[in-house]
Amino acid sequence: MTPGFGPPPETRAACVALDAEDPLGGLRELFRVPADLIYLDGNSLGVLPRATPGRVARALESEWGEGLIRSWNEAHWITLPETVGAKIATLIGAHAAEVVATDSTSVNLFKVLAAALRMQATDAPARRTIVSERGNFPTDLYMAQGLIDLIGATGGPRYELRLVDSPLELTAALDAQCALVLLTHVNFKSGAVHDMAALSAHAHRQGALVIWDLAHSAGAVPVALNRDGADFAVGCGYKFLNGGPGAPAFVYVATRHQDRFSQPLSGWLGHAAPFDFDPVYRPRAGIGRYLCGTPPILSMAALDAGVDSVLAATELGGVAALHAKSVALGDLFIARVAARCAGAGLALITPRALAERGSQVSFRAPPELGGGYAVMQALIDRGVIGDFRAPDVLRFGLTPLYTRFVDIWDAVEHLAAILESRAWDRPEFHQRAAVT
Amino acid sequence: MTPGFGPPPETRAACVALDAEDPLGGLRELFRVPADLIYLDGNSLGVLPRATPGRVARALESEWGEGLIRSWNEAHWITLPETVGAKIATLIGAHAAEVVATDSTSVNLFKVLAAALRMQATDAPARRTIVSERGNFPTDLYMAQGLIDLIGATGGPRYELRLVDSPLELTAALDAQCALVLLTHVNFKSGAVHDMAALSAHAHRQGALVIWDLAHSAGAVPVALNRDGADFAVGCGYKFLNGGPGAPAFVYVATRHQDRFSQPLSGWLGHAAPFDFDPVYRPRAGIGRYLCGTPPILSMAALDAGVDSVLAATELGGVAALHAKSVALGDLFIARVAARCAGAGLALITPRALAERGSQVSFRAPPELGGGYAVMQALIDRGVIGDFRAPDVLRFGLTPLYTRFVDIWDAVEHLAAILESRAWDRPEFHQRAAVT
Repeated sequence: MTPGFGPPPETRAACVALDAEDPLGGLRELFRVPADLIYLDGNSLGVLPRATPGRVARALESEWGEGLIRSWNEAHWITLPETVGAKIATLIGAHAAEVVATDSTSVNLFKVLAAALRMQATDAPARRTIVSERGNFPTDLYMAQGLIDLIGATGGPRYELRLVDSPLELTAALDAQCALVLLTHVNFKSGAVHDMAALSAHAHRQGALVIWDLAHSAGAVPVALNRDGADFAVGCGYKFLNGGPGAPAFVYVATRHQDRFSQPLSGWLGHAAPFDFDPVYRPRAGIGRYLCGTPPILSMAALDAGVDSVLAATELGGVAALHAKSVALGDLFIARVAARCAGAGLALITPRALAERGSQVSFRAPPELGGGYAVMQALIDRGVIGDFRAPDVLRFGLTPLYTRFVDIWDAVEHLAAILESRAWDRPEFHQRAAVT
Repeated sequence: MTPGFGPPPETRAACVALDAEDPLGGLRELFRVPADLIYLDGNSLGVLPRATPGRVARALESEWGEGLIRSWNEAHWITLPETVGAKIATLIGAHAAEVVATDSTSVNLFKVLAAALRMQATDAPARRTIVSERGNFPTDLYMAQGLIDLIGATGGPRYELRLVDSPLELTAALDAQCALVLLTHVNFKSGAVHDMAALSAHAHRQGALVIWDLAHSAGAVPVALNRDGADFAVGCGYKFLNGGPGAPAFVYVATRHQDRFSQPLSGWLGHAAPFDFDPVYRPRAGIGRYLCGTPPILSMAALDAGVDSVLAATELGGVAALHAKSVALGDLFIARVAARCAGAGLALITPRALAERGSQVSFRAPPELGGGYAVMQALIDRGVIGDFRAPDVLRFGLTPLYTRFVDIWDAVEHLAAILESRAWDRPEFHQRAAVT
């Protein structure tokens, strides 16, 4: 039972009634949700907030068009990475001066991986493994591999990326060889949530540092980076923060680590005095040294408006309330699949407990459904947008800012109809798109 | 004498007449140049093209707002880095498959610095210096320092960044220890152009690789990367390409080097099959492996429109014609300063010859003018926007797409008036802004 929302409604009319009395229900008006869609993919790309076009138009037509170069000062472009970062900080349990919005999640991962590895190379050079999960989002693993390869190929030691497959293995892997642990807080495929406090504490006891990827957490599930002992974190701007396609990402560095080293992507915006044109890099004090090149202002303006769209829930209980509604939406989804799709063989892979569940529900599709790819295409064809994650996962993102209980009801009705009629088994639904 | 434009006009009326018959004059209509400004800072931030708001609004409201996640395929977001890169390739003498638009110039520099260093670590491990100029744009030096520090601090060899102060020293520094040369084609301060063909050939004879920074070249001066033997290049989207504040940058890798190594920022968009969610990085064939994270689509859409604004000159002679006009504008600027500001002590630091001059003119200000900072502030106060580069350079960018001969005439009249009246010597003009 989820606080505030009660057990899943058992009729469509009850869903409509629950939406009508939902204290978060009014937030949907802040978004342009296309009328013909049930959009359950806000964990891939959040919906356009109504305020965003105005915010971007201001940056584009007034600040750039009229102000031109003067807007770096007068429109405060130069401090946008910090001002947007400070807003994000409030959503993830960090101090304002611990977060900047910049670059992509992958690039930010490289910065913190390198900074953390360098700390360990100084303090504990015998530690040579980076531990992560095989089921982590692949780009996290790729960035670690890129760093390891670079160090090894240019004459440094051979670090090892050690991938584990279970919580038990993970605990065991945090041994005397482990330099860093790289974990994604909410698993992109299953939606399972790691216990940040317990894992951070365990890592620290073993002498390892922890980097948390908050791609599926920021704006979606309660996160308390400082309370829970995180060393470094990164996250994504275009999922639950609604910052638009490819929005800048963010990076968090705990205050205690900030001034120890500069990160290797030491571009001019991280310099203590970028307009001195000093040929020698001197890092800024604080989180600012995690900036690199010139920020993409138009995309940053959209991110600013996107973060504001999440902050609009602050007075209504903030991220904790959003997560509680998300879990209630998920409970409804799960209950309706059990009621309407029994026998289809869909296996829930998302944990049931509130504290263990991110803002999505995912099902593994059986071989009889061809692994599920075509099922998702058939759903999309009916205007229900979730996504498919290879090899066989149907993933439904739940963004309580703009998703209603009735949407969930209707989505599962579509799913049931597709499964019952085998409408998914058409050649056009089996044809893979470039992006899935 | 500049081809097509003749000697500098000697009256304001002659400037107006020259503008009227300028075959490139009509291009100004493609831009929203604020009516009250003479904007000579397009080498810091290009002017807003008239087509950009529509292009961005399409990406924002239709592609994101309506298409949502489907736009990665249906609006071809996923291939934008390549399609915009292919357009840029035509401006810099590269093949379409050698350029992608992505990340920032600094981040792209890190990729090619690391890839090049890795090539040399394999082929010629005794080569341990990266040679550059002390007067290079600082971020280029910072990125090299960041890479060197990372390798050294994690247990690898000590590479050295060797900075030279003169062309003679540069030639001498390309010795048996030199792994890479990192040069900016057009110097940001003086506007002097390097001889890419001669320097690339010399570097190759000495066994070094060459990375060219085209920040002040792309869209402004003729560049022939393939003809002139470049190994790697990077460049900026928001200067002469008019892509908007912090627009994505670009990276070029010569075909012969592309598939040798992956670069260390090995994010998922550089993977051969990003949607297989393979835990092991397998780079794409070709330039695509120089992509990293998800591209910022709104800023990329603006860059697309910005590049189109330069391509609009193609039928009128392209970059060569733009550069010829830029040099004519510069000649007028220089002639007018000689005529109207004689005795003020402004010393031209931009080369006179067409082949040696970028798309700007720069003057060193004498101590009697307080180094020039306040002079530039006084000019800006009158609506003539150039910029100041510490410690004492007045820099005027010339973007022939939207700059008229009459603008140059008027700009120097303002400068002369300010110098004559000492109007610059007021407290408010001495106060330094955060961004200069």
